[in-house]
Amino acid sequence: MSDTDPKESSPKRKRSGGRNARQEARANTTVISAPYIKRNIPIFNILSEEGLELIENNADTILQEIGIEFRGDQEALQLWKEAGADLDGERVRFPKNLCRSIIQKSAPKEYTQHARNPERNVVIGGNNMVLVPAYGPPFIRNLDDGRRYGTINDFQNFVKLTYMSPSLHHSGGTLCEPVDLPVNKRHFDMVYSHIKYSDKPFMGSVTAPERAQDTVDMAKVVFGEDFVDQNCVITSLINANSPMVFDATMLGAAKVYARNNQATIISPFILAGAMSPVTVAGTSAQILAEILAGVAFTQLVRPGAPVVFGTFASSISMKTGAPTFGSPEPSLVTYITAALARRLGVPYRSGGGLCSAKISDAQAAYESANTLQTAMNAGVNFMLHTAGWLEGGLAMGYEKFIMDVDQAGMIQRFLGGVDLSENGQALDAIREVGPGKHFLGCAHTQANFESAFYMSNLADNNSYEQWQEEGSQDTTQRANKIWKKMLADYQMPALDPAKDEALKEFIEKRKASFPDTNF
Amino acid sequence: MSDTDPKESSPKRKRSGGRNARQEARANTTVISAPYIKRNIPIFNILSEEGLELIENNADTILQEIGIEFRGDQEALQLWKEAGADLDGERVRFPKNLCRSIIQKSAPKEYTQHARNPERNVVIGGNNMVLVPAYGPPFIRNLDDGRRYGTINDFQNFVKLTYMSPSLHHSGGTLCEPVDLPVNKRHFDMVYSHIKYSDKPFMGSVTAPERAQDTVDMAKVVFGEDFVDQNCVITSLINANSPMVFDATMLGAAKVYARNNQATIISPFILAGAMSPVTVAGTSAQILAEILAGVAFTQLVRPGAPVVFGTFASSISMKTGAPTFGSPEPSLVTYITAALARRLGVPYRSGGGLCSAKISDAQAAYESANTLQTAMNAGVNFMLHTAGWLEGGLAMGYEKFIMDVDQAGMIQRFLGGVDLSENGQALDAIREVGPGKHFLGCAHTQANFESAFYMSNLADNNSYEQWQEEGSQDTTQRANKIWKKMLADYQMPALDPAKDEALKEFIEKRKASFPDTNF
Repeated sequence: MSDTDPKESSPKRKRSGGRNARQEARANTTVISAPYIKRNIPIFNILSEEGLELIENNADTILQEIGIEFRGDQEALQLWKEAGADLDGERVRFPKNLCRSIIQKSAPKEYTQHARNPERNVVIGGNNMVLVPAYGPPFIRNLDDGRRYGTINDFQNFVKLTYMSPSLHHSGGTLCEPVDLPVNKRHFDMVYSHIKYSDKPFMGSVTAPERAQDTVDMAKVVFGEDFVDQNCVITSLINANSPMVFDATMLGAAKVYARNNQATIISPFILAGAMSPVTVAGTSAQILAEILAGVAFTQLVRPGAPVVFGTFASSISMKTGAPTFGSPEPSLVTYITAALARRLGVPYRSGGGLCSAKISDAQAAYESANTLQTAMNAGVNFMLHTAGWLEGGLAMGYEKFIMDVDQAGMIQRFLGGVDLSENGQALDAIREVGPGKHFLGCAHTQANFESAFYMSNLADNNSYEQWQEEGSQDTTQRANKIWKKMLADYQMPALDPAKDEALKEFIEKRKASFPDTNF
Repeated sequence: MSDTDPKESSPKRKRSGGRNARQEARANTTVISAPYIKRNIPIFNILSEEGLELIENNADTILQEIGIEFRGDQEALQLWKEAGADLDGERVRFPKNLCRSIIQKSAPKEYTQHARNPERNVVIGGNNMVLVPAYGPPFIRNLDDGRRYGTINDFQNFVKLTYMSPSLHHSGGTLCEPVDLPVNKRHFDMVYSHIKYSDKPFMGSVTAPERAQDTVDMAKVVFGEDFVDQNCVITSLINANSPMVFDATMLGAAKVYARNNQATIISPFILAGAMSPVTVAGTSAQILAEILAGVAFTQLVRPGAPVVFGTFASSISMKTGAPTFGSPEPSLVTYITAALARRLGVPYRSGGGLCSAKISDAQAAYESANTLQTAMNAGVNFMLHTAGWLEGGLAMGYEKFIMDVDQAGMIQRFLGGVDLSENGQALDAIREVGPGKHFLGCAHTQANFESAFYMSNLADNNSYEQWQEEGSQDTTQRANKIWKKMLADYQMPALDPAKDEALKEFIEKRKASFPDTNF
């Protein structure tokens, strides 16, 4: 133990290995094998009980006075009539506490979504957090091609990258739109790609009821018909058409999934100021009203079907009407609606690495980090859009994906909490080292250094001189190398050949049964 | 009120104004006149009472068994002897509760630091947050010059930029090292620049006791001798030489400030794994031990002198020994030490826009945002390094400064909390608009849109096409334009000419009284 500059005796590796060798070495220390995050840190509540009750009362007022429209779906209206709601055309008004009592009678507080590899099953709800890649972008962006439309090859690349990212727990859904395939058939290829190239849980198609049914039918091939009826193997995204509307497409898809006992995330899609009032409290009340109606609806279809309180909260620029991300007001909405979901007793979805930046620059990172940190602290259970999101969701970024995955690893680590064991307290290390010395070589450090700190495979922490020597690369350039190496190293998880054949046969038959269209 | 796409009828401005006009218009909506943040959101605690008590007990054990070294300062040792500590050479060991009882007898829970403009006085401690620019970098970076040594001109630029940033409440201290001036005299020019070019409160020199005294003497010229003795007009940074050492330079400066009733921030400077154990709980206990000894020391010098529990917590890469920022473990340390400071009953300093990135790219932003969000939620009272920090503190970035100031504005907004008034609840807006319509034109939106959402002057939320048309600029390029415009628009606050003359006379006389040196 000497008193020299800590840098002098730090465990430096030889220079000869070069950057790639170092990145690989680092990556090996960050593999996280947990299938999802079990939170070991409290949840951050920003509003008092009284404040939350006020918002709940306002949501009740909205449901009673204004109501919610269930458009183009007679069955939905009939279900509400039977449940005791007041119908006025497609407008449904709800007696006080009707929705809440329906939900609390049958909706599960948490549920397991099964993966085809049981070790990758995730528990959604409670004290758990499941991180899921971005959803829906028609474009992709990378350093090589710039911005262009997504293809099925891009889609599969993101399935593979997600599969290889230990801090993403779920394969997600529409990782990008495979624009090279006909609109009315691309869901077959997307669902098949999730099953074939990954063994993590996945999301289903919602763009038409029959596409939802195709998703369920493909899941039955993989998991078995009875298993699917009794267990959740698909979680799918049902957007409300805010303010206060559910449309026929979404209702149709929601009915298919709920009837098959599969999970839906009922998500008001809010750009506050356009689809909701310009205030946090007003937006939160409207979201809760939409949620109460939508979530209760799934329980009318099949009591006990798993369902998630979803929120996508953004604000708009009051100068241009464009959506803004990572700003304080949507963060406040996220904290509040997370607390409302806990009080209601259903799992909660929000967050992600959201940004309006066009490229993976500082704006993208500030906005994404702000949204990710908020979701982490607010107690989000299912975090869609964790990785890859650019341009308000219009583009899926390859490099951005790598950056966000790094953040996801940090979230996993942070939520693991504080080790208060004797080893964690480290009093013996402090005794051994003493005043004015350094801890690098002490026994406790040697015993713990490999797992002591989260190790990013992306951040450059080297000296300025070394960074220069390695080409003065920015984060995007480094991320570009990482995703390429990951794709090169990808190895497909085994899939029962009989199931694979049956899936391909199902798809071929279904695809041949109706003509291609682009709507 | 129509049912068209919200984008269609959004209040778009004419294109002809161009980017600068738009930025200016936006900037006008984000002026925040509060001299500091009064927190209206709870604090996020991550550790239980029992966990915090365990760490407090371990800190007591360190103080009793191992002790703290007060090096090269006989007066300090004498003060400890008189207070009842056990001396063994320069090693001081503390009977249980000695430090805590000294602190709790006289250290103020919060204090006002006066600015020469009373409207800019800040209250440090309690439920308040004061945002302060970065401190100490020898280099500067901007898009025009790249990276180079800082000069007094750069220093003055950052005083001016801070003065013009409503979300920075304090002028800070060594905004960058003016390397073009002799080491032993540059403090005169730095303190004078803070006084001359800004009217916000400022920090003093700590690199030698006589330089601290010069700072106090200059403050006396501005505020008057009696006023300075009875009021805090300077807050200065005293680093512990962790682990468990205070050196003569820091003790000397701390004594000057405390004796003059001026505030000190006692700050263990921790790269965990080098200056403290590799664990969160061990690092937190060591920090608390160092704080208890250092803070109590200021109260021995002058009971009641304002003093802050400071922390600078980072971890190191266990591969290279380089410091890392924005990672989960230092965030946990920040949450814990903030709670320990509240239990002790003194103001708390930590946080900032910390990063190890060399340039203001995505890495810089993710790391900075993670640190800023943590400090915001943990209840930091005095946030040094809020804006400008790059390269682990080696460089002050002009563009990075602009980016972080934007984040500071968001922090201010977030901590303002949720408006639960009738206007905030916005039920009438929801009634007016109804299902399927949009809120852009409704009366409530019209009445609130100017202040509804935080408006960044830096983020580009425009469409991809418009962003392309404006040159596909990244955040750094946009920030470059902003700081240049700010410097061009800068207007010096009035300073009493008699005081200005007296200051210049004092400096001239002192500078002439000893030769230039570069140490």
